[in-house]
Amino acid sequence: MLSPSLLKSFVEIVGPENVFTDKADLVAYSYDAAVLDAVVPGAVLRPVTTEALGAAVRVCNENRLPLTVRGAGTNLSGGTIPDAGGVVIVTNGLNRILEINEADMYARVEPGVVTAKLAAAVEAKGLFYPPDPGSQSVSTLGGNVAENAGGLRGLKYGVTRDYVMGLEFFDVDGNIVKTGSRTVKCATGYNLTALMVGSEGTLGVLKEIILKLIPLPTHRKSMIAVFDKIEAASETVAAIIAARIVPATLEFMDNFTIRAVEADSKVGLPTDAAALLLIEVDGHPAMVEEDADKVAAICEQRGALSVRVAGDAAERDKVWEARRRALSALAKTKPTLVLEDATVPRSKIPDMVRAIQEISRTYDLSIGTFGHAGDGNLHPTILTDKRDKAEWARVESAIEAIFDKALSMGGTLSGEHGIGTAKSGFMEKETSPATIVYSRRIKAALDPNNILNPGKIIGRAEGA
Amino acid sequence: MLSPSLLKSFVEIVGPENVFTDKADLVAYSYDAAVLDAVVPGAVLRPVTTEALGAAVRVCNENRLPLTVRGAGTNLSGGTIPDAGGVVIVTNGLNRILEINEADMYARVEPGVVTAKLAAAVEAKGLFYPPDPGSQSVSTLGGNVAENAGGLRGLKYGVTRDYVMGLEFFDVDGNIVKTGSRTVKCATGYNLTALMVGSEGTLGVLKEIILKLIPLPTHRKSMIAVFDKIEAASETVAAIIAARIVPATLEFMDNFTIRAVEADSKVGLPTDAAALLLIEVDGHPAMVEEDADKVAAICEQRGALSVRVAGDAAERDKVWEARRRALSALAKTKPTLVLEDATVPRSKIPDMVRAIQEISRTYDLSIGTFGHAGDGNLHPTILTDKRDKAEWARVESAIEAIFDKALSMGGTLSGEHGIGTAKSGFMEKETSPATIVYSRRIKAALDPNNILNPGKIIGRAEGA
Repeated sequence: MLSPSLLKSFVEIVGPENVFTDKADLVAYSYDAAVLDAVVPGAVLRPVTTEALGAAVRVCNENRLPLTVRGAGTNLSGGTIPDAGGVVIVTNGLNRILEINEADMYARVEPGVVTAKLAAAVEAKGLFYPPDPGSQSVSTLGGNVAENAGGLRGLKYGVTRDYVMGLEFFDVDGNIVKTGSRTVKCATGYNLTALMVGSEGTLGVLKEIILKLIPLPTHRKSMIAVFDKIEAASETVAAIIAARIVPATLEFMDNFTIRAVEADSKVGLPTDAAALLLIEVDGHPAMVEEDADKVAAICEQRGALSVRVAGDAAERDKVWEARRRALSALAKTKPTLVLEDATVPRSKIPDMVRAIQEISRTYDLSIGTFGHAGDGNLHPTILTDKRDKAEWARVESAIEAIFDKALSMGGTLSGEHGIGTAKSGFMEKETSPATIVYSRRIKAALDPNNILNPGKIIGRAEGA
Repeated sequence: MLSPSLLKSFVEIVGPENVFTDKADLVAYSYDAAVLDAVVPGAVLRPVTTEALGAAVRVCNENRLPLTVRGAGTNLSGGTIPDAGGVVIVTNGLNRILEINEADMYARVEPGVVTAKLAAAVEAKGLFYPPDPGSQSVSTLGGNVAENAGGLRGLKYGVTRDYVMGLEFFDVDGNIVKTGSRTVKCATGYNLTALMVGSEGTLGVLKEIILKLIPLPTHRKSMIAVFDKIEAASETVAAIIAARIVPATLEFMDNFTIRAVEADSKVGLPTDAAALLLIEVDGHPAMVEEDADKVAAICEQRGALSVRVAGDAAERDKVWEARRRALSALAKTKPTLVLEDATVPRSKIPDMVRAIQEISRTYDLSIGTFGHAGDGNLHPTILTDKRDKAEWARVESAIEAIFDKALSMGGTLSGEHGIGTAKSGFMEKETSPATIVYSRRIKAALDPNNILNPGKIIGRAEGA
C-alpha cells in the first residue's frame, strides 16, 4: 500500500476518480496473458492527459516506486506483470487518434488506442496499417510498440517496428524525448524510436506514436489447403517461399488445433485433416491471380488433399476469424495453456515441426501447433494443468527443449511475444555475456533507480 | 604521433604491413566527403581479421585513444573525420561476403564489403538488396549501416535500416555483442541492431552484418518527364504519391543540375528544361504497365512537355547512371560543394522547392537541387568557394534557413546523410533538450572514456 502523501500526489495528478487502490482493482492488474505468478501492485493510475502521465512518471521516479505501464494486458511473456507494491499505469484513458494524414500516409496516436480501431479508421480512408497481432481487437498500439508485436501479416508486411516512424516519450524524469519523424527517411540522431520499440516499458513511457500507413491493397484471395500428412504441409510452406512468392499470410494449423478451433467456432474445418495451410495473397489483381494459381499448384504437387479458394468476403472473413480464435479455442481444452513463439529461418519450418512432435512425445505432453509458418514463427502451444506438479516439470523441460532446437537451427527465442520475465533467463543462450552487459549498461544509464518495469528482458541483476 | 609501445601493440595485432603512420597516409585519412576541416590522425590500421579488429578496439579503449572506423570515406556529414592524433581503422581488409542464403533470403557480410558488390552478387541469384546510396560503387556496407544510408529506392524499398536483420559488433572493451537474427521476426531483447544502425561508430564497432534480401522484381519501366516550370514538376511528385502509386524511384532535377549533368555525361538531357522527373516503376508486369500509364497521365495533366519511356535496358541504365553522377557533375562547377539533405513530408515537396528557390535569391547563392523527391528527400546543393569568406558566411546562413524551413514543415535535419559533426549543433532544434540528454546518457554508459568516434551526433559536451 502506498503512503497517504504519495496517494495524495497521484490524486492531484490524475484526479480521484482515476486512482484505484481497492483489493479487487489491484488484483485485476496483477497478471497478464502469460502463465506466471500474479503480483499485486500498490496502486493503479489511469491518466487521461499526457501531462498527467508525465507527472506520474516523475513522481514514481522521485519516490523510487516501480512503474509498469499497461495497455490491454494481452502480453504473453509477463511484460505487464507489475512489481509488488508498485504502480500500474493503465493507458485506456489516452486513446485518441490525433491525426490520420492521407497525403503523407501516417497516423499519430496516443498509446491507449486499440489496434483494430486504428486499422478500421485508416481502412475507411483507403489506407492500411498492417500489423495485426492476434489480440488486435483489444490490444493497444502502445502495448504493440512496447512489445514489438507481430501478427499474421509479418511475412509480406513486417511487424510493428516496421511501422513506427517516430515517438514522443517520457524519460524516467518525466521529460519529453522526441525521436523519428513524419518523413519517410530520417537519419537524425540515434534511432531511439527503434530502441524503444520492443523495450517492454523499461526505457521510457510512451506519450505519442507516429505510425506509417501504406496504400490498401485492392485485391486479395484466400485459400485453405488440406493435408493428410503434417510434413507435407510444412514442406509446402518452405516450397512456396522457395518459389519466391510472398503471400500476405501463410498460416499453419495442426490437427490438434484444427479440432479445438472447429469445436469452438463451427466454421466447417476438416477435423480429420493432419494439417491445414491458410494462405492469402494480395496486391495487383493480375499478380493475385497468378500467385494464387502458383500457390495452389505447389500445394497439390506436395500432396494437398484439396485446395479451396474462399468464394466471397464473408467466407474469407469466417476462416480468418476462426484462425484468430485458435488461441482461445485451445485455451478451452485444458486449465493451463503455455504459448511459445520460438522462431526459425523459414526453410527450417519442416525440421521445427518435426522437432516439436518429438518433444511432445519425449515429454508426454499435448502440444497444439499453429502459427505464422511463412515467417518461421510457429506457436507450439502446450496444454496442461499447472497444478499437476509432475507434468509441469515436464512442461518446463519441454519449453527449454523448444528454445534449444530453435537456436540450433539459427532461430530466436522470441519471434513476436517478447522476453518479459518469462524468457529473460534464456537471453544469454542466444546472444553473449557481453550482450547482456551492454543491454544492462543502457538500462542503468536511462533508469538509474530501476523503476521502469524492473526485471523485464535483462533480469534483476545489478547493472554492469 | 603514437608512442612506440602503442605502435608495437598495433603491429602485433594487425601486422606491420597494416599499420600506417607516414604523413601522406595520415593526411589521406584526415577528411571525408563533407565540407569540414581535415583532422590528421596519429595512425591508420587495416585489420584483415575480425579478431584483430576486436583486439585493436580493446587497445584503443585501454589507452584512451580516440577511434574512428572508416569504410570508403564517402560520408557527407563528417562522420569519418578522426580525432587529432587518434586512430583510424579502415575496413577494406574485412571485405568477405560470408554467406548468401537463398532459401532464407539473407546475406552475412563483413563490414568492408562494397555495397554494389553485394548487390551484384545477390542479383546473380535472383535476389535483391535495394539500398543504393549514390556512392554505392565504392561505399561499404559497414559505412552504410553506421550512417543508415539511403538512396534512390527509399520510396518503395526503404533504407539501410530496413534491411539489417542482425549484427555482431565489438563493444568498447572489445567483447562481442550479438543482436538480431536470421529470422524474419525477432523480439529477443533490446533492438541493439537498430540502435547501432545510424549511430555513426559511436556505440560499437561492426564485426558482421546480416542483411535481408528480397525477390528481385521481374519487370521495370523507366520514364523521363520534362517540365518547363519547376513548380509543375514538384506538384507532379505530390500528385503521383496522392494517387497511391508507389514508384521504385521518383527523382527530381532542376535546370542547374540538368545542365551540370549533361555537361558531364552527354546523355542527351534537355538542358533548356526547368526540371525533370526520372521515374521507375517495378514489380508484376501488369502492374508495371498500369502504373507507368497512370504516372505518364499525371505528368501530362500537370503540364509535362514530354514523357519519354526508356526504350531498352541500355537507354534506361544510361539515364540512371547520369542521375547517379549528379553530385560529381555539380562538384565540377565550383571549388566547394555543400550537399544538404533536409527532408520534408512528401506532400510538402512543392513548398520546399519554392523555399529553396527563395533562399537561393535571399542569400545570393547558386543552389542546384536534385534528389529523391518521392520520399521528401531533396538535396539542395550549394555551389560556392569556401575561400570567399563573405559568400561562405551567406552559405552558413542559407544552410540554417534550409533546416528551419524543413523543420517548420514537419521535416527533419537529415534524410539520409546523418548528423556527424556537421549538424550536431542543430539536433536540439528538431528534438528537445531531454532528447540530447537521453542520447548522451546512452553514449556515456556504453563508451565511458568517449573514445568511439567522439563528437559525432551528440557533440562534445560531457555526458549528462
